[in-house]
Amino acid sequence: MRQQTNIFPGTNCRHQSRMIGSLGERQLIESIRQWLGPVAPPAPLGMGDDCAVLPATAASDQLLITTDSLTYGQHFDQTASPQQAGAKLIKRNLSDIAAMGGTPGHALLNLLCGADLAIDWLEQFVGGLRDCCLDYGVSIVGGDVSQLAAGQFTAALTLCGTSGDRPLLRSTAAIGDAICVTGMLGGSIRGKHLSFEPRLAAGQWLAAHRACSAMMDVSDGLGKDLAALLPAGSSASIDRQLLPISDDARACAREDGQSAEAHAFCDGEDYELLFTVAAASDWRAFETDWQAQFPDLRLSQIGRIVAANPASPARYLDAASGAALPWQSGFEHFKHR
Amino acid sequence: MRQQTNIFPGTNCRHQSRMIGSLGERQLIESIRQWLGPVAPPAPLGMGDDCAVLPATAASDQLLITTDSLTYGQHFDQTASPQQAGAKLIKRNLSDIAAMGGTPGHALLNLLCGADLAIDWLEQFVGGLRDCCLDYGVSIVGGDVSQLAAGQFTAALTLCGTSGDRPLLRSTAAIGDAICVTGMLGGSIRGKHLSFEPRLAAGQWLAAHRACSAMMDVSDGLGKDLAALLPAGSSASIDRQLLPISDDARACAREDGQSAEAHAFCDGEDYELLFTVAAASDWRAFETDWQAQFPDLRLSQIGRIVAANPASPARYLDAASGAALPWQSGFEHFKHR
Repeated sequence: MRQQTNIFPGTNCRHQSRMIGSLGERQLIESIRQWLGPVAPPAPLGMGDDCAVLPATAASDQLLITTDSLTYGQHFDQTASPQQAGAKLIKRNLSDIAAMGGTPGHALLNLLCGADLAIDWLEQFVGGLRDCCLDYGVSIVGGDVSQLAAGQFTAALTLCGTSGDRPLLRSTAAIGDAICVTGMLGGSIRGKHLSFEPRLAAGQWLAAHRACSAMMDVSDGLGKDLAALLPAGSSASIDRQLLPISDDARACAREDGQSAEAHAFCDGEDYELLFTVAAASDWRAFETDWQAQFPDLRLSQIGRIVAANPASPARYLDAASGAALPWQSGFEHFKHR
Repeated sequence: MRQQTNIFPGTNCRHQSRMIGSLGERQLIESIRQWLGPVAPPAPLGMGDDCAVLPATAASDQLLITTDSLTYGQHFDQTASPQQAGAKLIKRNLSDIAAMGGTPGHALLNLLCGADLAIDWLEQFVGGLRDCCLDYGVSIVGGDVSQLAAGQFTAALTLCGTSGDRPLLRSTAAIGDAICVTGMLGGSIRGKHLSFEPRLAAGQWLAAHRACSAMMDVSDGLGKDLAALLPAGSSASIDRQLLPISDDARACAREDGQSAEAHAFCDGEDYELLFTVAAASDWRAFETDWQAQFPDLRLSQIGRIVAANPASPARYLDAASGAALPWQSGFEHFKHR
């Protein structure tokens, strides 16, 4: 196997020519444009003017816009290939577009890094971004480069998309609705945080399906994210035995002694779709429709939205016992730990 | 005068509660939303869902999108107030919208910083951003926060706008066109890099005026930016005595011994409009129109686009002598200096 490309090759003289500090800003931007190749159209749609000029959306469409960043040492490290890191940057945003039932379109890239960043590494990072843009039909139409202190790398990507007449929101679930999730949960640190596939086709299908009442993606972990789907005065009653626990969650549990269920409930970066199905809809018919469309993507109904018990403010309840679940939150960024 | 708020108050225990590391991500985002106040609409237009949902643009409009970042130690330092820094972040983007003749609309904010960032400082930074959004009719509809190493602060802002049927591009100038610039150039480091006003009204007026053939903003300095307006096989013939040299450029010249003209030609961060007026148009009529519209904003015709001399590849020529100007480029980011 090829040796991993080093993100910061070190500051001895021998390596100076391999760092982006040996390029000027103009040459760096021109290199990025060349590495992006077919996904970087020329101005006025793409790079080269003060703004990118996007075509007007169809009158029946709504414009979606989202942004996310990827920081070395926080969202990836040297165990990720540069291609995987570049793909992850856009896939995190694609997952947000999927969560509204949208179709991705145009993106802008902010690159913020030390002058000691390896040119080779950046070329491969941009290559991973390019390949993912080709897979999902995204163009990079603009961006910005800016210098940080040595050893620092962050990229931010802003992604536009369109939805039909009905983007699926988080705020439209109701008491009685079934709580559903795609795929398997937990243990993404073992690889899925890089290898995940944003659920665009499923998101579009769900947004068009009248039974689906609300949707979001699971990025910070079910335990943190699910609260955003719960209307005021409600709780989530969870069928614990129906949680789709991944093999990676089980492997993590064997390593750290926590339960696999805790990993499935609390780990971040699943990038699955979390959605609700209206109480009045025919669940069996919905499940049959789903299986015909997505035979390889597991659908789990993990619980139901219920009226909150005024005596117990817990957001998450065990459906079997009615007791509060032990995990009432997920991953928190920034907190001193 | 009130004492300057420190951006990183230091890591001794007494100060822990004043740093954003004492907040979780959720509380940090909620604080930012509160500080933004009226310029942060609720979901689905604004924060709170996976994407912001923008209204469709009118069929006759084009959507403009641009992004820029602001890094502590590079684009501002402790001599800038946090309010000035927050305003500068959005004004850099507003200048890009102005340069296309557009009207600004919705923005997304990426905040990337160490856990040791002062909460007070961030509140005032966001306050400066908010006040500028109010001045220019911009809403902050989404964003992202992410952690960097201690002592680091970068914010990126992506701004959408609309233009009428004719956004004014950089690429549409022709040989013979007059080269014009608004305001005064040079020495922005003495204060204008923070206090500048993006030239939105002038940009919109120029885009609607048929005489104006191409436009951009001057952000990296005239000497670097002007090249982007020159069509292939052309040079810029500059009337050196018509360069609008600012008092700040003269003050810089007194300090460092370079000429004031060099400062006007090469310094970055003027954020003025640089545009061309078609050769066939009536310059006197254009100038009269301008003065009626913008009596307080200086208009300078600083030269003309001429056919390149195949014997001399210089992009910038002295109109009086025909010789190459001594400054053929402007500020370069990233280069080791």
